[in-house]
Amino acid sequence: MTVADIAAEAGVSRATVSKVLNGRSDVSPATRSQIETLLATRGYVPTKRTKRPLHLPLPRAAARRGGLLELVVNDAGSPWSAEMIRGAELEARSARVGIVVSVLAPGHGQQWLEDIADRAPGGIVLALSELTPADHSRIAKLGLPAVLVDPVGDADGTIPSIGAGNWGGGMAAAKHLVDLGHRRVGIITGPMRLLCSQARLAGYRAALERAGIALDDDLVQHGDFHYGSGFEKAQALLDRPRPPTAIFAGNDEEALGVYAAIQERGLRVPFDVSVVGFDDVPMAQWMAPPLTTVRQPIAKMAALAVRSLLGHQDGTEMTEGRVELSTKLVVRSSTHSPG
Amino acid sequence: MTVADIAAEAGVSRATVSKVLNGRSDVSPATRSQIETLLATRGYVPTKRTKRPLHLPLPRAAARRGGLLELVVNDAGSPWSAEMIRGAELEARSARVGIVVSVLAPGHGQQWLEDIADRAPGGIVLALSELTPADHSRIAKLGLPAVLVDPVGDADGTIPSIGAGNWGGGMAAAKHLVDLGHRRVGIITGPMRLLCSQARLAGYRAALERAGIALDDDLVQHGDFHYGSGFEKAQALLDRPRPPTAIFAGNDEEALGVYAAIQERGLRVPFDVSVVGFDDVPMAQWMAPPLTTVRQPIAKMAALAVRSLLGHQDGTEMTEGRVELSTKLVVRSSTHSPG
Repeated sequence: MTVADIAAEAGVSRATVSKVLNGRSDVSPATRSQIETLLATRGYVPTKRTKRPLHLPLPRAAARRGGLLELVVNDAGSPWSAEMIRGAELEARSARVGIVVSVLAPGHGQQWLEDIADRAPGGIVLALSELTPADHSRIAKLGLPAVLVDPVGDADGTIPSIGAGNWGGGMAAAKHLVDLGHRRVGIITGPMRLLCSQARLAGYRAALERAGIALDDDLVQHGDFHYGSGFEKAQALLDRPRPPTAIFAGNDEEALGVYAAIQERGLRVPFDVSVVGFDDVPMAQWMAPPLTTVRQPIAKMAALAVRSLLGHQDGTEMTEGRVELSTKLVVRSSTHSPG
Repeated sequence: MTVADIAAEAGVSRATVSKVLNGRSDVSPATRSQIETLLATRGYVPTKRTKRPLHLPLPRAAARRGGLLELVVNDAGSPWSAEMIRGAELEARSARVGIVVSVLAPGHGQQWLEDIADRAPGGIVLALSELTPADHSRIAKLGLPAVLVDPVGDADGTIPSIGAGNWGGGMAAAKHLVDLGHRRVGIITGPMRLLCSQARLAGYRAALERAGIALDDDLVQHGDFHYGSGFEKAQALLDRPRPPTAIFAGNDEEALGVYAAIQERGLRVPFDVSVVGFDDVPMAQWMAPPLTTVRQPIAKMAALAVRSLLGHQDGTEMTEGRVELSTKLVVRSSTHSPG
């Protein structure tokens, strides 16, 4: 069951199905609902078969020994970025190419792009949550091959992108909770300007709808991927007259904050409230109790971005300039039937 | 009170005092004990005043725009390395120099050094736990300025090094527990081939001796800085006929494993067993309860290494080619008087 099959059955274009998968807002509610139902009931799984290879200028400067690729992240200290650096470095090293790591802090000017141009790298991996349209056109002007990883919003198609199956991951997380018997499932999203947050929320909604559970906006809270927002938004959910019996956190760091809010009230994870995270950073397995979470192939996304810049043709489907790698639910000890 | 003052009072050379501070084994037990007592009772604090500036060839290749510095770590995915990358990148970016991150995996050959030579960087920051004498001489042959950060063993002096005050940190952690009233304080070290592990253990011993507490080898366990060893070695400590009432873990990740071992037995941190970590990685503040730990200036060490390679004269004391930045005890909620 492919995007094309779903599109044919719904009588819409493949682009419209992709929009729903990516959580975009420019789809009518009726069409979205129809497509989400089809995706859910027909067992859609993101494919990885060859459809259209990545077409990028062959970056001879990078592919030689001593060559460089640039990796730009928002925060080198986060577990997500650390995993991204690890994956990119491993892939580049086998080609004897160096990875220059840059951090693009909020409110950045143009200096970062000048600095990259000065180093004349073979290509750029942009693992960024924020990239303005002006940045997009400046990057295009550099004339260097570039790949976006897990981009913030609607990619305009000028730069190829690699992401995780966020819709499928959100769906798998919520379905797991529903299958355990939960009917009141709260969600604390990531920042809603990010494409990944939108897609995870859409996947969560699709799973509840599929199970015939009415959506309750009181159970949707918007966080920022950090511990503090997990803590505060979980408090808000637990303060509801009818609190949720399970909470799906936007990522693993938020899930840690959710644990703290639950435990502060003398409640227990998972017997009083189940918790699911997203990412599967190393810390997830060491939480008490170990966290059930959706594993993102972070290092694999980074490696694929590097491979594509090095001129490999990886054979991965590249629908509308985007490759999506599948996520995987990892069940540990933070989820249980409602008490 | 400086190293020179302590040396004068003990009637030994400054080098001997440095050996004790660095946990080296080539000091007689009697001399070590005498010096540790002096360090503890005279209130020795590592100085940061100018004594001898770093003398390195001015790396013109790096200091220009578009220049490169190399940062070599053992594991790009660890919180420690992530913090090191963050600190190095921030400092290099302000000089408009790029940081190439490489991972030197165990059992590495020589390819990593060839790859670095191919890129012709302005200098190398080696933030490595393993570096063979052969590696040392190969690095020297490259003719590039290099700085070791937190090195594994006795630096032979050919490469300047920057480290944290591990002895002082170990002492502060153990003293904090002793001051709370603990008399049976367990320690789970890092790998004992690492200079930092030796120095932390020496600091712990000095604090106990100063308080008149007899050292008990049953309370010393050797870990490997990872979660699993924290868990297993804490179990071993708790299985003693007279278990410790407090455990000083080699780093924060080990401390997480210690928490798990304590909680698995139905015991509570800190009321049944107090725990102290080392590093203060971001996760430490989110543990349940938040972890009391020794903050290492990881990003600062990285920044100083970069500054020295960029030709700044930082004014930091460089006794025997080594700069030591002080650590700081951060008291949170994992330590309490014995129950």
